[in-house]
This record gives sequence, structure tokens and C-alpha cells, in this order.
Amino acid sequence: MPPAAAEPLTPERILETTEEVLRRFGPGKATVVDVARALGVSHGSVYRHFPSKAALREAVTDRWLAKSVVVLERIASAPAEAAPSKLEAWLGALFEAKRQKAGADPELFATYTVLLAENSGVVDAHLTQLIDQLARIIAEGVAAGTLAAPDVPAAARAVFDATGRFHDPQYAADWISPTIVPEFEAVTSLIIRGLRA
Amino acid sequence: MPPAAAEPLTPERILETTEEVLRRFGPGKATVVDVARALGVSHGSVYRHFPSKAALREAVTDRWLAKSVVVLERIASAPAEAAPSKLEAWLGALFEAKRQKAGADPELFATYTVLLAENSGVVDAHLTQLIDQLARIIAEGVAAGTLAAPDVPAAARAVFDATGRFHDPQYAADWISPTIVPEFEAVTSLIIRGLRA
Repeated sequence: MPPAAAEPLTPERILETTEEVLRRFGPGKATVVDVARALGVSHGSVYRHFPSKAALREAVTDRWLAKSVVVLERIASAPAEAAPSKLEAWLGALFEAKRQKAGADPELFATYTVLLAENSGVVDAHLTQLIDQLARIIAEGVAAGTLAAPDVPAAARAVFDATGRFHDPQYAADWISPTIVPEFEAVTSLIIRGLRA
Repeated sequence: MPPAAAEPLTPERILETTEEVLRRFGPGKATVVDVARALGVSHGSVYRHFPSKAALREAVTDRWLAKSVVVLERIASAPAEAAPSKLEAWLGALFEAKRQKAGADPELFATYTVLLAENSGVVDAHLTQLIDQLARIIAEGVAAGTLAAPDVPAAARAVFDATGRFHDPQYAADWISPTIVPEFEAVTSLIIRGLRA
């Protein structure tokens, strides 16, 4: 690590270091003092940007979740694709993103799961963003006559609920099952068939 | 309670008393000694029928789950009803049974949740029974031309997975939400629409 005092202490630097500390110690053990030590600053300096351990944990989760939302947003707003295949691609990308995070970044994933159990506002906002993207895809399909949904927000929520096994972190242990991909495909095609005009 | 020594110690009597003890103490605290004391027998007499605390806990959960399977079996094997409305009735009865258990019998529900987390064979067998009932309903609909499913067992599994939020005990906390019933109906109608021929 470079000598910390040489760089200004930005929120971004604190969050990057918090990710490293969470990966190293896990969400149960990582403290603000560990983050401050890794940055070579006092814990008071960290608290100036994030007033509590909870605030810091929420901010790091928020930043981490935002990355997958960007990928999904790109699919949701692709101009040329028809809604049914866009929906399929979007659900596949969501499953892939969650699986990849659970497998490749288990400590941050555990932090996310802790926040989920606490009904954190960060996670609620994330889920709302995802359901909004789904609603936009479905509304596009309804407008183009490829999908049918009398109540678009309710349909978006239903699609999200019906695919929970493939994005809810409570099911992360199932995602390494050898049959999980065909199971995901069976649910996805059932749902898309249910939405077709 | 009647004087215990007057009645023979049957497995059924042990299981009934275990239910009472679980309701009173919860799955964390209830012991085989508590069950034996409530029956007025030695714990050795209980162990003669159930060789361990785990075996007793599995047997009581098995008996408890079997009750809801009977209700669902009646729906699955009703001769006159068309498959799509049978499917809707079956999914509604499953949700209702789980909700009722979670609300009215929280201690036994907690025991079931503990067994689920332990990947108990009792729970696996229960889930297999439920998915088999679904497969029979779907196969009936395919034969009658009201439903379409190229792979019936995969479709049954997909229906079960897609409705997980409404029967998986991990979601029990959501079942008291004021929006849970319309959310259940939205998922159910999406799925049934997806299966229609």
C-alpha cells in the first residue's frame, strides 16, 4: 500500500479500503479502526466522512450493488432489442451477477446478506431500481404488442418475485447446484411465456 | 394430563407430547428429558422408540407436514376440476397452509425451519411429494389439452420454484405484509398463463 498521508482522504478511498478490509476480516470482525489503520489515518478521520460503522457498511454495499445495476441498465435501455428477449437477457444477467458475486466475493456478499436481514434502506433502494428496470422492459413490450400486462408495475414485481430463487442471497447455497442453470431456464421461459401477448 | 402409566407408551403418544413440549419450550430448549417428564416415563423409554433427539424431531416434523399434504392431495386428485383451476386452488392451499402454520404454530414452524437449514431428509421427501402432486396436475392438463408443457417434471419444478416466496419458510416474515395476497395472485396468474396451451 502507498504511504497513506500522501493522498487526500476521499470517501472513495475510504470505501475502497473498507472493501479490502471486509474481504480480509469478514463483516463480523472488520471495524472502523481496521479501516483507519489500513489507510494510515485516525479513526476520527474516517468518522468525519462516515458517522458510524453502519453508515460505512451501507455505503460500501451501495457502491458494490451499483456496479451490477449499471450492467442491467445497459440491457434495459438497449434500443434495438425486442422486449421478450430483452427480459430474458436481463434475468440472465441478474442471475449471473449475483452468482458471480456470491462465488468470487463471498465476504462482500456476506455483508450484503447481513444488510438484507436488517431490512436496510440501501437494499430496498436496490430492489426498487431492479423492479423499475423490469417495469420499463415490460412497458416497452406492451407498447410494441409483444407482451401483455394489464398492470405493468404488478407484473414487474411478479417477475422479480417468481425469479427470487435465482437472485435472493438467501438462496446463494443453491447456486452451485449442477441443475441450477436448467432450473433457472425453466422458470424464465415459463414467466416469459406467461407475459407474451 | 392423565396419569401417564395408565396408557401404553406408543410412538403416537410420544409425538403428541413432543409437539406440546416444542410449543412450550421452542426447538432450541426442548429436550428428550422434557418429553419423558411430560409423559411420566424415563427418557430411556422414549429412546426405545426414537433413538435420538434428532430422530424425534424429524418424526414430529414429518407427522406435522403430512397433515398439509393430505389437504393438497385431495385437491390434486379431485376428478372433476380442470387442470388450470386445480393448479390455482392447489397453489392457494399450499400458501394458506404454510401461512397458517407460521402464524398459528410458530414453535413447530421454527422446528421445521431448523430442519430445512440442516437439509433434512424429511423436508426433502416433503418437497418431492409436493412437486409430484404438481406434476400430476400438469400432466392431467397436458392430456386434456388445457395446459402445455414439453417436460412435465421440469414444469412442476419451475412452478414450485417460481412460487417459493409463498411457501418457503425463509420468507415467513413476508407473509404478514398487507400486499402479500395480491403479490401471490400476480405470480400465480403469471405462471398459469405461462402454462396454458
